Amino acid sequence: MAFKWPAGRGQTGRMAEEGVPVIRYEELPEGPAVVLLDQRRLPREETEWVCTDVPALVDAIQSLAVRGAPVLGIAGGYGVALAAARGDDVAGAAEQLANARPTAVNLAYGARLVEAAYREAERSGAGAAAARALAQARALHQEDAEGSARLAEYGSALLEELVPGGGLRILTHCNTGRLVSGGEGTALAVVKAVHRAGGLRRLWVGETRPLLQGARLTAYEAAKAGMAYSVLTDGAAGSLFASGEVDAVLVGADRIAADGSVANKVGTYPLAVLARHHRVPFVVVAPVTTVDPATAAGCDIEVEQRAAHEVTEGPWGRSGLSGAEGEEGRALAPVGAQAHNPAFDVTPSELVTAVVTDQGVASPVTAERLGELCSASRRQASGSADGMMRS
Amino acid sequence: MAFKWPAGRGQTGRMAEEGVPVIRYEELPEGPAVVLLDQRRLPREETEWVCTDVPALVDAIQSLAVRGAPVLGIAGGYGVALAAARGDDVAGAAEQLANARPTAVNLAYGARLVEAAYREAERSGAGAAAARALAQARALHQEDAEGSARLAEYGSALLEELVPGGGLRILTHCNTGRLVSGGEGTALAVVKAVHRAGGLRRLWVGETRPLLQGARLTAYEAAKAGMAYSVLTDGAAGSLFASGEVDAVLVGADRIAADGSVANKVGTYPLAVLARHHRVPFVVVAPVTTVDPATAAGCDIEVEQRAAHEVTEGPWGRSGLSGAEGEEGRALAPVGAQAHNPAFDVTPSELVTAVVTDQGVASPVTAERLGELCSASRRQASGSADGMMRS
Repeated sequence: MAFKWPAGRGQTGRMAEEGVPVIRYEELPEGPAVVLLDQRRLPREETEWVCTDVPALVDAIQSLAVRGAPVLGIAGGYGVALAAARGDDVAGAAEQLANARPTAVNLAYGARLVEAAYREAERSGAGAAAARALAQARALHQEDAEGSARLAEYGSALLEELVPGGGLRILTHCNTGRLVSGGEGTALAVVKAVHRAGGLRRLWVGETRPLLQGARLTAYEAAKAGMAYSVLTDGAAGSLFASGEVDAVLVGADRIAADGSVANKVGTYPLAVLARHHRVPFVVVAPVTTVDPATAAGCDIEVEQRAAHEVTEGPWGRSGLSGAEGEEGRALAPVGAQAHNPAFDVTPSELVTAVVTDQGVASPVTAERLGELCSASRRQASGSADGMMRS
Repeated sequence: MAFKWPAGRGQTGRMAEEGVPVIRYEELPEGPAVVLLDQRRLPREETEWVCTDVPALVDAIQSLAVRGAPVLGIAGGYGVALAAARGDDVAGAAEQLANARPTAVNLAYGARLVEAAYREAERSGAGAAAARALAQARALHQEDAEGSARLAEYGSALLEELVPGGGLRILTHCNTGRLVSGGEGTALAVVKAVHRAGGLRRLWVGETRPLLQGARLTAYEAAKAGMAYSVLTDGAAGSLFASGEVDAVLVGADRIAADGSVANKVGTYPLAVLARHHRVPFVVVAPVTTVDPATAAGCDIEVEQRAAHEVTEGPWGRSGLSGAEGEEGRALAPVGAQAHNPAFDVTPSELVTAVVTDQGVASPVTAERLGELCSASRRQASGSADGMMRS
């Protein structure tokens, strides 16, 4: 089951200082729970959605109470830990979680990783295995936060190099902040680091139609962080470039092909073309796990076509983004209008100034350099797995 | 004052056959009125907005009940005729109308033209002057319809040359059809001519945030005309270019500087940059009166900044686009979010393959060629003015 409560209930210590966590695992008097900052209601309402079993968590994932690749991995992991703590069928839970959203590879990764930890400890008894599963989920959460911190560090150092002198006006697209991460996020983590260092003049927030992750979520994070920011329609970015008011573009990535082609939220590619036309750095920030060596080139990336109503009915109702339950979608276009609604677009590597990963920076973006960063990541992962085996 | 009535009330004869006119001047039992097909309510509701004085018309113009460069000229003209018929201050009315929206040069053009006609006839008495003003406004309306037919003819011939063989997939932005015109429009008039000749494979309709003139109005016209069309978010155009699914871009213009820089609905410039990047023809279609010799260059064009709530609250409520009266704007972004919301952007002439005017085509787009087209127009106008003087 699931229920709503005011954001931050029962939070203590360090967590309370840092604001409402995007996801947390709690032992409540009623039993264990995965508690989500409910993104369906942001920015209008800060509430948490408390999931006390796996079906409730799967439902929350499918209805976008929690979304964004890295945090979905953490949700998958905590979900398996929750099943273990409740004494539910752990294999079944992992299976349900892994398939909650078909394209989210991180979800399956997190669920399987924690399931494996559970299996490994099972001979020591169910209690010990459940504890081991939770420890693995927490480790995944922690690793993601650390990866996010490295992205911020590498990214802000790169910006210092590309556009020295501070006072940056950075344009971003979609939401790539703490709402999608165990830490501060990807591209937005870099922006926050620049802001903390006093180097941000303004964040330009592309609203990101159709689901408005920019206007709703990035603006929410920018406001919380005390940044100077402005929301703009996606088409308004052009004149900002033309008037010289963009110093750099920072975006995330949903998948990076071996050749450096970047699949990201639809609307990213036009920004890359504009950035090139105006000689503005276009920087992609993503954990190295986003690089998919199995996808050779941009043309191999299959782009999900989403439902027409997201475009023709506006960003409420059926899209799941309504603040009030039970509201209908509002028709914008004539009844029966067709829509072309790809979720992503693909930016070729030659338009990307740099890919910032948690293992270092690729600039220029070449298959060789991305391969190196992936290898570094694999070395680190096997190192930390060794560490875990020993502990 | 202004009030709403069902579309087409009191329409007779030819008008009734052609559908609800976008703008008409009527002598009602209550007195003279400018009657507008209320574009704030399309496509959900076909109603007319009846303006019985100039302040009501100015208000209707500012809230976009009527919008689009050519029809604004007609609105300006009818507005001055309305003031004259009511015995109001004609100079004051012309001034108010001319300044109702800053970027729309046609508005001032129409208002000043009809004011001049009024002044010229003033010595024959107020009644005669009012009649003369109305005749001039009606002539402007008629000329615009004829100009629209010539745009369609020149534009479709040009496309035949640029992209021979038919089966065109045309991308357009904003609304440039009969809703903005005394006739079939500008860019959309060309699309309609291509469609009637069997040469249109698909019209890609950019939704045109923030006020969604594409999704709402162009889709409405495309559906009425029986075209194959798809609505897309403005950011989704990029991947269409990348996959080779755009054969030509056709847009209108709000103002063209003497150097050929084109001010048009925000989001136009990114399409021009994408079109250049992908070597796709980018064609601007506009009556030659859109060329403003007093504006030397693109940087001299004043771009209207519109209210933040158009972006931060979504396309209902305060933007005037609600179907139901009294609805509130729906917050998308956090309370207090700033927005960058320019109404237009400026595309330099070097990105424009051709400017199609009612006097002929400029391709390449040079100051000299635009000057020639303007001169041709002035010769024609003085000819038709002579004709009027004689009649």
